[in-house]
Amino acid sequence: MSGAEATAIGASERERQRARLGLLSDVLLETTRFFHEEGFTQLLPVMLGRSTDPLGPDPGSSVLKTVEVDYLGQRFYLMNSMILHKQFAVRDVGKVWILSPNVRLESAERRGSGKHLFEFTQADFEIPRARGADVQALVERYFARLGSVLRDHPAFLELEVEPPRFAPPWRAYTTHELEARYGAAWEEAASHEADQPFWANCHRREFYDREDPDDPGHYLNYDLIYPFGYGEALSGAEREWDLAPIRARLARDGMPPAAFAAYLERATDLIPSAGAGFGIERLLRFLVRASHVGDVQLFRRVPGEPTVM
Amino acid sequence: MSGAEATAIGASERERQRARLGLLSDVLLETTRFFHEEGFTQLLPVMLGRSTDPLGPDPGSSVLKTVEVDYLGQRFYLMNSMILHKQFAVRDVGKVWILSPNVRLESAERRGSGKHLFEFTQADFEIPRARGADVQALVERYFARLGSVLRDHPAFLELEVEPPRFAPPWRAYTTHELEARYGAAWEEAASHEADQPFWANCHRREFYDREDPDDPGHYLNYDLIYPFGYGEALSGAEREWDLAPIRARLARDGMPPAAFAAYLERATDLIPSAGAGFGIERLLRFLVRASHVGDVQLFRRVPGEPTVM
Repeated sequence: MSGAEATAIGASERERQRARLGLLSDVLLETTRFFHEEGFTQLLPVMLGRSTDPLGPDPGSSVLKTVEVDYLGQRFYLMNSMILHKQFAVRDVGKVWILSPNVRLESAERRGSGKHLFEFTQADFEIPRARGADVQALVERYFARLGSVLRDHPAFLELEVEPPRFAPPWRAYTTHELEARYGAAWEEAASHEADQPFWANCHRREFYDREDPDDPGHYLNYDLIYPFGYGEALSGAEREWDLAPIRARLARDGMPPAAFAAYLERATDLIPSAGAGFGIERLLRFLVRASHVGDVQLFRRVPGEPTVM
Repeated sequence: MSGAEATAIGASERERQRARLGLLSDVLLETTRFFHEEGFTQLLPVMLGRSTDPLGPDPGSSVLKTVEVDYLGQRFYLMNSMILHKQFAVRDVGKVWILSPNVRLESAERRGSGKHLFEFTQADFEIPRARGADVQALVERYFARLGSVLRDHPAFLELEVEPPRFAPPWRAYTTHELEARYGAAWEEAASHEADQPFWANCHRREFYDREDPDDPGHYLNYDLIYPFGYGEALSGAEREWDLAPIRARLARDGMPPAAFAAYLERATDLIPSAGAGFGIERLLRFLVRASHVGDVQLFRRVPGEPTVM
């Protein structure tokens, strides 16, 4: 928000921005309360890691590069996500959650998707020895409670949008079912048809998501998809803890070995866990029915759009 | 924390680490509650900005470089702090606070200071049209409440340290008084002699701290210093909002114009404000009487010390 922009958008748009940010602030408070009440230890985020999320292989990924920083003889990577750190945290600390800023330098063509930012904050959590069903139940409790606590928030009246009505448990599909019905672009199509969030399970993606030992080629992971066309809300998985498949999949996917050396060196005693992360800005976008996720940011971070500050 | 480290430090040290992180988590919850109850809007952090805190001129600074990231034709800086963004946020939103991760690539010689990290999280806040006295009173309320809420936290018993006894209002000195009494290294010496936090006011530093219009060469800023040798807790100021002195001080201090162009372009309608930021890890270090601030990090970030993950 520059002064010029603020003037250009006018006083009423400024009031709407304040309403959105007031709601964002209360979402952060309720999210913090929820995870504490559920027994999670809140950790501080990491920004520079010796390894970070490769964000691939993912045919949908359009991240241009991971930022590398050399400092006192060591190479660091600006966090794409804290997933690899969460695996050590859950082993050493137990149930953990983090308000984790992520940088993902998306290509300019993502400008118009409505849902991509080049930096955003995830509520990222992980549970030792949990299964996907445990995580999904927790996520449903979270949304049900959030909807109930926020029902009368003044921002909805001011922005003239209906408060969300989250009525879990939600339907679950496999990506195979969704693709058969809607084609490769199932996320958007299925989201448009839905009036409640739904689960999309089994995605072929990063090495840290566990492959189903009883059904190779299938994965014990899950995304939550918002209805009304708002698309992906959350992404999570049971994690791979066995070093042999981790090494095999890193090699198969052509990941640069140096970028994962720090992780592999100490991955010898990982434990089974499951978790997920959901973007706070995407949640806000859904709550206020914003046309672009950048509309809920005070400092817009939309790929391909000039950044003012 | 690598697996090897965790094994080497043994089960009892791991239990102590869990106790410290449990306390950290509760400090984060109480901090979140406090700022919400005081009427602040919680914002999400910014990691890459078009301008960031110059961290100088400060004779005590040993930051080697600010990380620069080129992305889609624009140059960004990895946040040293969100101070410049806070000035726009306070104008557009009102009272704001942020759990803000900061990266400061300190020189290796800072390894032994006990209080330096190359990344850490600040609780950073700003109040429109406030004076320094308002901020100091708020900070004293915060610490008094934190001490009271945490008094019976099990971590203190487990770590065998006395819970803090914060008894504000706290004494205030000018840096001139402190320097006259203790010399240039007054911070450490005065901190060692104190048994309560104290205020050190009037530091010659960055352009965004307001110079006293009635007493040029003096500054309307303030640090809070922990007792028992733990040093700086918090740093804050009334802000400069007038573009002429901002420009003059940037030029006088030899700041690179390109790095502040984005800021200056929209600094034409800044408003008076005051605020501060305090490092969460330093607060934890003080609470648990850790010898090094890195001891309270699950993922250690000590300058000059090899980083494992």
